[in-house]
Amino acid sequence: MTTPAAHTIESARSASAATLAELFAPIAEALGRVESRLQTELRAGDGRLATEEVDRVVRHGYRLGGKRLRPALVLLSARAAGEACDDHVLLGVVVEMIHTATLVHDDVLDEATLRRHVQTVNARWGNETSVLLGDFLFSKAFYLASTLPTVDACRVIGASTERVCLGELRQTLSEGDLELDEEDYLAIVEAKTAELCACCCSLGARYAGASTEAIDALTAFGRDLGVAFQIADDLLDLTGEEAATGKTVGADLAKRKMTLPLIHARRELVDGPRLAFDELLRKGDGASRSEALRIAEETGGLAYAQEQAEAYAARAAERLEVLAEGPDREALAMVAQFSSRRRA
Amino acid sequence: MTTPAAHTIESARSASAATLAELFAPIAEALGRVESRLQTELRAGDGRLATEEVDRVVRHGYRLGGKRLRPALVLLSARAAGEACDDHVLLGVVVEMIHTATLVHDDVLDEATLRRHVQTVNARWGNETSVLLGDFLFSKAFYLASTLPTVDACRVIGASTERVCLGELRQTLSEGDLELDEEDYLAIVEAKTAELCACCCSLGARYAGASTEAIDALTAFGRDLGVAFQIADDLLDLTGEEAATGKTVGADLAKRKMTLPLIHARRELVDGPRLAFDELLRKGDGASRSEALRIAEETGGLAYAQEQAEAYAARAAERLEVLAEGPDREALAMVAQFSSRRRA
Repeated sequence: MTTPAAHTIESARSASAATLAELFAPIAEALGRVESRLQTELRAGDGRLATEEVDRVVRHGYRLGGKRLRPALVLLSARAAGEACDDHVLLGVVVEMIHTATLVHDDVLDEATLRRHVQTVNARWGNETSVLLGDFLFSKAFYLASTLPTVDACRVIGASTERVCLGELRQTLSEGDLELDEEDYLAIVEAKTAELCACCCSLGARYAGASTEAIDALTAFGRDLGVAFQIADDLLDLTGEEAATGKTVGADLAKRKMTLPLIHARRELVDGPRLAFDELLRKGDGASRSEALRIAEETGGLAYAQEQAEAYAARAAERLEVLAEGPDREALAMVAQFSSRRRA
Repeated sequence: MTTPAAHTIESARSASAATLAELFAPIAEALGRVESRLQTELRAGDGRLATEEVDRVVRHGYRLGGKRLRPALVLLSARAAGEACDDHVLLGVVVEMIHTATLVHDDVLDEATLRRHVQTVNARWGNETSVLLGDFLFSKAFYLASTLPTVDACRVIGASTERVCLGELRQTLSEGDLELDEEDYLAIVEAKTAELCACCCSLGARYAGASTEAIDALTAFGRDLGVAFQIADDLLDLTGEEAATGKTVGADLAKRKMTLPLIHARRELVDGPRLAFDELLRKGDGASRSEALRIAEETGGLAYAQEQAEAYAARAAERLEVLAEGPDREALAMVAQFSSRRRA
């Protein structure tokens, strides 16, 4: 699958957050219920454990929330394969909590200080509190999943989360490994990011009583969308500005984490230029970032990564062709496209 | 409830690890199956994610294991209330993984370097890997729980784990708060430690088809045992030696974490001695530890904490009186007593 050459990075950047809000308009009411439920659940409760400070930390888990992409995937998948019901609202809450838990723990790992223009938990309270808040969010999510009438959600979520963690472990243990190739990179991305997106779409379809064919199609859709999303995210970490993205940028390079534009740039280079590039990657400071960005641009690394993101988004859309045509199917395809072109 | 004065700290120290092995003799075969299953499950699997290094980290989660107290509580509770079956072996695996996950994350929080004579994950691979290994263990445990025929296990485990995290959060946010009183301390201990012990006993009874009365009694037993265990653990952190306990000691004081012997010592002191004691607690270095230990001994703080641990153990045993007499009920009562007198 190839992407039209006209999709250069600049044109790809034309998609905006407003577009996503428009795509979510048909599910706005249900997303509103996800928000309310998140607010209700993210409280410290009563008794001697529930000091104001504990409550403040727990509620911060809610403030970190962003686009609510994952609950939207649950709801749109349900509608594209049948009908969305109360279970889907609860599932939306569950997947958003799990996503937030991974973000909070990622921020410990990345030593990030900003996330969606909000101070990260580790920057405000320290790593200890971040680890515990993440664990709390995981536990709460698993508990809520267990209140559903069937054990399916617990199984799908448990298996997916396990895979997410393996992907993250593989990535962390590969930091500094400049030889990491595209296949390894994709295996990591499929696990650490795409798995949870696949899980959202799978659950949406399952709890709408969809056919096995529809569940499989939506699961594959979610996986491709997730890869598109992560490639675009990695591009942003290299090319973005904190003011626009609302989060710490340059974290990948600082941690010597190889991402697709860098992997492509590196394989285009030989001899001296390759050695010089490796030297830059090993340094990983602010000055190296702008130089690495220049080289990634010159060698076609940025364009290659952007093309790959869009190719995954296009394949995601193709996966939906077994479903009946309609506005929800269309919205999912657009969300995939958006994910490959996002700016924040 | 009071404890005979004859139970001084010295006599309490006579219980040994060999005793625990004896108590577990009737369930040795089942515990062996828990071990095998843990070894099978704690592998990185196949594919590009499963590098040798990833596998080594995941298997380390198994090596950190110790007494297997929690699987034993599941199995003995099942037998005391009915019969142990395959589900209990799986539940033993699940609770041990959750326990190990909390240990791995605790070691990040405590910056501990030794755990059961084995290097902690954070000391060997760093905090990032520790956070991820803990998350992997949590996820794997939840997934395994979801493979049981009913959703009960997921519900009980999800709710308990959530409470464990709240207790840990409350504790972390109270570090340096010298005013923390005995009630606050007990609320924290009940959540962070006793909740999972209660969960083990509850699951053992539930999956043995026990009556509500028996489930409630065993749950209350587990909770009291857990409090006894944690008070004894906190005593060890103050009084123990690394060579004997096989783990980093003095961590509580170093983190300005108030434990029962210190809380008691502090309330016995007034004016100058209180101010001097507070000064010591704020310092929290190695020299302060031996001085704080001396004061905790002189003011009766050590004896008070030991008495409380044994009182909780005695109350735990009383909870079992609604169950039919027998060797398993007896073994549980002995495990509670052991927990209040442990040396490692």
